[in-house]
Amino acid sequence: MAARIDPRTLKGFQDVLPAKALRRATLLRRLEDVFRAHGYAPIDTPSVELAEILKGKGGDETDKQLFEFTDAGERQVALRFDLTVPLARFVAQHQAELVFPFRRYAIGHVWRGERPQKGRLREFIQCDADLVGAVGPAADAEILVLMAAAYRALDVGAVTLRVNERRILNGLLERLAPGLAPSAVLRVLDKRDKQGADAVRTELATAGLAPEAAAALLEATAPGASPEATLARLSAAVRGSAVGEAGVQHLAEVRSLVLAAGVPAGVLQVDPTIARGLDYYTGVVMEARLEAMPSVGSVGSGGRYDDLAGLYTNTRLPGVGCSVGIDRLLVALEELEGGAGATSRSPAQVLLTHPEAGSPPEALAAVFALAERLRTAGIRVETYPEPRKHAAQMKYADRQGLAVAITRNADGTWHAKELATHATEALPHVEAVAAWMRARRA
Amino acid sequence: MAARIDPRTLKGFQDVLPAKALRRATLLRRLEDVFRAHGYAPIDTPSVELAEILKGKGGDETDKQLFEFTDAGERQVALRFDLTVPLARFVAQHQAELVFPFRRYAIGHVWRGERPQKGRLREFIQCDADLVGAVGPAADAEILVLMAAAYRALDVGAVTLRVNERRILNGLLERLAPGLAPSAVLRVLDKRDKQGADAVRTELATAGLAPEAAAALLEATAPGASPEATLARLSAAVRGSAVGEAGVQHLAEVRSLVLAAGVPAGVLQVDPTIARGLDYYTGVVMEARLEAMPSVGSVGSGGRYDDLAGLYTNTRLPGVGCSVGIDRLLVALEELEGGAGATSRSPAQVLLTHPEAGSPPEALAAVFALAERLRTAGIRVETYPEPRKHAAQMKYADRQGLAVAITRNADGTWHAKELATHATEALPHVEAVAAWMRARRA
Repeated sequence: MAARIDPRTLKGFQDVLPAKALRRATLLRRLEDVFRAHGYAPIDTPSVELAEILKGKGGDETDKQLFEFTDAGERQVALRFDLTVPLARFVAQHQAELVFPFRRYAIGHVWRGERPQKGRLREFIQCDADLVGAVGPAADAEILVLMAAAYRALDVGAVTLRVNERRILNGLLERLAPGLAPSAVLRVLDKRDKQGADAVRTELATAGLAPEAAAALLEATAPGASPEATLARLSAAVRGSAVGEAGVQHLAEVRSLVLAAGVPAGVLQVDPTIARGLDYYTGVVMEARLEAMPSVGSVGSGGRYDDLAGLYTNTRLPGVGCSVGIDRLLVALEELEGGAGATSRSPAQVLLTHPEAGSPPEALAAVFALAERLRTAGIRVETYPEPRKHAAQMKYADRQGLAVAITRNADGTWHAKELATHATEALPHVEAVAAWMRARRA
Repeated sequence: MAARIDPRTLKGFQDVLPAKALRRATLLRRLEDVFRAHGYAPIDTPSVELAEILKGKGGDETDKQLFEFTDAGERQVALRFDLTVPLARFVAQHQAELVFPFRRYAIGHVWRGERPQKGRLREFIQCDADLVGAVGPAADAEILVLMAAAYRALDVGAVTLRVNERRILNGLLERLAPGLAPSAVLRVLDKRDKQGADAVRTELATAGLAPEAAAALLEATAPGASPEATLARLSAAVRGSAVGEAGVQHLAEVRSLVLAAGVPAGVLQVDPTIARGLDYYTGVVMEARLEAMPSVGSVGSGGRYDDLAGLYTNTRLPGVGCSVGIDRLLVALEELEGGAGATSRSPAQVLLTHPEAGSPPEALAAVFALAERLRTAGIRVETYPEPRKHAAQMKYADRQGLAVAITRNADGTWHAKELATHATEALPHVEAVAAWMRARRA
């Protein structure tokens, strides 16, 4: 016996087995359909890029996570850690060939070289859509309409979109905390959901904010009774700050458009504590939350940026985009279902059994002909590939999670069996089988 | 001005722009639908694996091409170079969780570290389907039926499937070239298509084959008038070799089943020169060729193997599989179209223009409402995201390759314009627009 190699995967990397992969593929396809229904076209960029390209400015958190190595040509290269930096490089490089405003989606693997912690993957899928080269309420509203349509199509239960405007936060800080570094204050505010108002008040004081200012800031950013009430409160709080007033006005316009597109009022919530990507987003910011499981955190996010590709080109390219967290949604769905997960391991709807050993050759030919007939009718069919005992084939159908098994009788007629109920149906010929399967699905 | 980073990709890696990416995505989706219609479920395995796992036995051609590096944990790792080795590792590792016979498809990127030559990519997509844990004519025929269905669904013009049986070749060599290394003879025979019979005859002599044996071998493997005639000729040539006779018999049975499944007789050709993957395939082997462009070579291939995962487990897992060459098909399609390639850069069917600057807010709200109405009817819609001049928006629609642009009139009615003919249609309200679009598509 030759020495075997122990079959195993690297820490932080995962195999996806059929039942889960089927479910993920279904979600990804629905998502793609939504992206396309809104005019977003796919692009593809390399998984491996020059490290210099991916590192950009350098020195920040993502650089440390880069899966970096030296290739055979002694170049410093790395696996991409997101789809945004490659988009920026792509847009700068192909400016002349692209039509702006440019809408693209990308669904692809990304890699993080960090030490894997519990549940942290070093390879996972990102699903991004961006509208590059457009500013204004219509562009921002479009991304929110797209996100709402995405979660509806994914059919994962109620998802709310929490939206804010960075300029409102800037206005609030200008009015209530002049002289303090906005990023420090925002980082504290961001913890309100998890730590509560009191802890935040203490931290704001530590950051150097006077008690009255901290109280006003907390009041202005408190959860509101309704989006209208929240917007009115924010409007009052930023009065006198041009940037803050512009932010409130813009967010109100965006909200009207999203509602005009039929997004239910309850889906879109104004949440003045949402900040996201402090160094990156400059206008509207948004976060999607699964209402049945808020503990899973954001299942999608996005926002407006001023200058996508400034590292690679002098052309200023503002835009707005979002990312849908499919992997996190899958984890949440599995938890919600009590760990049961998806049950079917096969995309097929029916098993055609193989004639048992000793059957004449025309029996198997008839099975192949029926399979083709059913597939032509849009039915997904597995044929059992070997002449095993009928009972073993039925056990296989059961384990695969198939609903129906169809067998040819010695006289050339057929019978179908419902795996769940064991009910059987006699069917005289191929067309009767096709008609019965169609009726069963309807 | 900050120093810019020159935006560029690594040699051998490519960006895929919208028009081509749209087309590729369409082909991949059709292919997935065919895989699923035959009961194949997706799985996903990591892009990065331990080099030890991917190298397997070591020392052969693929090892040299491995994109190998040391990760942050000082492990020797590599990017996968195909989807078959990861499948073998996966099946060995998850044996207890999988149901056999096991059908899986995988569509994913693979990487080759070799020095990039003209047209050779270091990153490309593979599309594989395998049926593991089954032997016999039904299993082999299923893969051929699947391949035929795939090329039909891809709608790329006539594709022939050239099929052979390794055991027929073994029988021929047993009868005509006993004592010679089969691999040496097969490598020479494989060149017949490109170099012609005379060159092959000379090479066979160099390999040590007597002139009469070489002549008999060339005659037996010459292109036949029909699959029946070829099978009859091969049957005569291998008479007396048990393995050869079994091969001919098996191939004839497989062919009957493929024809029973409705694959046109002309699609399936018996070609005794096809050998493929000498160290790997042991039974049926197949190759797909695009008839309009044979020069592009094989656009898909496959075959039967005896022992998929022998490196990782003592369980013997025979199977049969195929790989569809989507990237090569795309190149061929572009050449056939005279380099024109796909023309539409957008998945959308219609542009809704943005009201020009100065329009009342309800105008834009009405556009958002119409977009939602059309999407609900299954129509893919782009809205122009900024209040630019109408002429600029129409130019955008043209460049995107959109067929129709729809604009709201000041009085709340709409008009549609066909971009190709400049014909316009007055439409009184949203429902009229929806009905007109539906009729236009029908």
